[in-house]
Amino acid sequence: MREQYQSRINELIKYLETQQVDLAIIKDPKNVFYYTGFNSDPHERFMAFVIDLNKQNQYLFVPSLDLEIAENASFVKTIVTISDELNPYKILKDTIGEGVKAIGLETKVISLYHQEQLNQYFLNYSYKNIGEFISGQRMRKTKEECFKVQNAIYIIEKVMAEGIKKVKEGMTEQDFTAELEYLMRKFGAEGPSFSTIVLSGEKASLPHGRPDKKTINKGDFLLIDMGVIVDGYCSDITRTFVVGEETEKQREIYDIVRKATLEGVNASRAGIPIGQIDIAARNVIKEAGYGQYFNNRVGHGLGIDVHEEPSVHENNDLIVESGLLFTIEPGIYIPGFGGVRIEENVYIDEDGTAKVLTTFPTELIIIG
Amino acid sequence: MREQYQSRINELIKYLETQQVDLAIIKDPKNVFYYTGFNSDPHERFMAFVIDLNKQNQYLFVPSLDLEIAENASFVKTIVTISDELNPYKILKDTIGEGVKAIGLETKVISLYHQEQLNQYFLNYSYKNIGEFISGQRMRKTKEECFKVQNAIYIIEKVMAEGIKKVKEGMTEQDFTAELEYLMRKFGAEGPSFSTIVLSGEKASLPHGRPDKKTINKGDFLLIDMGVIVDGYCSDITRTFVVGEETEKQREIYDIVRKATLEGVNASRAGIPIGQIDIAARNVIKEAGYGQYFNNRVGHGLGIDVHEEPSVHENNDLIVESGLLFTIEPGIYIPGFGGVRIEENVYIDEDGTAKVLTTFPTELIIIG
Repeated sequence: MREQYQSRINELIKYLETQQVDLAIIKDPKNVFYYTGFNSDPHERFMAFVIDLNKQNQYLFVPSLDLEIAENASFVKTIVTISDELNPYKILKDTIGEGVKAIGLETKVISLYHQEQLNQYFLNYSYKNIGEFISGQRMRKTKEECFKVQNAIYIIEKVMAEGIKKVKEGMTEQDFTAELEYLMRKFGAEGPSFSTIVLSGEKASLPHGRPDKKTINKGDFLLIDMGVIVDGYCSDITRTFVVGEETEKQREIYDIVRKATLEGVNASRAGIPIGQIDIAARNVIKEAGYGQYFNNRVGHGLGIDVHEEPSVHENNDLIVESGLLFTIEPGIYIPGFGGVRIEENVYIDEDGTAKVLTTFPTELIIIG
Repeated sequence: MREQYQSRINELIKYLETQQVDLAIIKDPKNVFYYTGFNSDPHERFMAFVIDLNKQNQYLFVPSLDLEIAENASFVKTIVTISDELNPYKILKDTIGEGVKAIGLETKVISLYHQEQLNQYFLNYSYKNIGEFISGQRMRKTKEECFKVQNAIYIIEKVMAEGIKKVKEGMTEQDFTAELEYLMRKFGAEGPSFSTIVLSGEKASLPHGRPDKKTINKGDFLLIDMGVIVDGYCSDITRTFVVGEETEKQREIYDIVRKATLEGVNASRAGIPIGQIDIAARNVIKEAGYGQYFNNRVGHGLGIDVHEEPSVHENNDLIVESGLLFTIEPGIYIPGFGGVRIEENVYIDEDGTAKVLTTFPTELIIIG
């Protein structure tokens, strides 16, 4: 395990050297986890993995109250603790000292406030964005990382299979969500990887709707989009069911979306611009005449974050390569009628082919 | 409801005028909720409530896929949708047009990346921090907001009361957490307000530890720190139990922490620097000789966010006033032995006195 972190850090240091960076401050908690093994949400407290390239030191700055966990979880030797009443930027400066000319920052993570604080203690420095390099590193996943996502998928698929047995007509979306999240924990997940989406009937037309007191009724679409975190890695799967018996229109829409997902999966392979995967899936829906009812990208990367690089949208010309792991989740959302989404998780294997990690059937299943 | 949002916006606009701001871009999703009623997590997508002071317009920018929800949830008339493949900053500029000299930004929320994007489309502007004003506005809660938090407390206390009946010796922390989170949903919560903390035995010494496969055993401390979101507002309560029978040392520590919490509550009232509340609670622990085992602040504000202003730490000289709502949660954490935390939620009422919102008993309860 330790070697894996060390090799990630070595790769990063090589990059930092090409950028003539003296100091790298890594603040995204998921990036800190990626490099150090310490997986923690500091909320508004200061936490950072810091690489001092001049003195060749590495530090993990953590809130005082997390010292014990950080010592157990991370292999970084120098842990610097920060009490709530102290200024973390002053401690950072006192630790690093003088001579810093260029600081590497994740520009999507460092706020203007952070910058103002840094400016108080580090004078005349310039910053370079190291966030894209880190996202790129995280985007290319090893087999071991793929297995971790697969494990998270294995558990969420067990939840899906057991969960749908519990649906009864007249049950609220909220109560059904309670059953699903209970199973997540019971089957060993650390928790949901995002707020579980359970939408029935017309509500299934809301790509990001929320479960509430609405009851699940006969004839409803039942859209379930959920995932879990296991060992720091996420899964994310969607299936849409029909309660009771489907109408012709429901069946029609379902079959189009299913075909769209399949075409997206089939298009996935190394060497093509990733936008082509979006287009392949989207075209199925467009050609069937439902293009106006599908307004978002086809998918997103999945790993330590439930949304990470790459973004699978039509204008992204990133070339697909081995190690990419992403979702394919086209949908048709008709306001006032309902919606269907079917979401698979795909890994681009060493040989450049796509391996579908999700195994839950995509055929329309009637429940209740 | 609508009036409440309008009056918050009016207050903000008055402030923006004093700052000579032409344009305010409010990006924190919780702030967007506070002003518009639209409560959504856009993940990495662009979402913002924008006030154009020159043209006296207000806009809600949302990801295309959230249009239907945004229309239902928000009273802002002009909703601008952004598809995944488009540049939101270009759309923002096209919507607002020329003449922007000073932009109000939440500097703790706007990243360097956002700033770089803004710089591409808005030339020669300066920015002013409006985040502190907004935090201050949110910090002073109306009675209606207090009732919302109380409702979230009511539900989490029901979960606590029902939940501890389910503890059995040999049960894993994880399985017990599953029971608690199941009850949260069953009792009507939208979900946990943060990752539920269930720690037993030695692990109770980790202020931010995580439930895992460790079994809950006879003689263990069982620390439960949890909260729920109901109607967009959070609760956050901690109680520590003993499984089976307590030792003398466990009882001693428990009683000290209980007294510390009580002293913190008793110290709470309008007109004093908030740091005094921290000191009042902390002194109990210090005087009992356990000062080294309590390394974090005594509490934090609670509302739409589970951690918000004010921060209850000894160096904070903010004067307590009516409308503040915060936690008081001192603890003693002894590595290798275990820990105790008892957390109450307090509201400073119109007359300046503290109203304890939490009602769950603080006496040591033996369970299992």
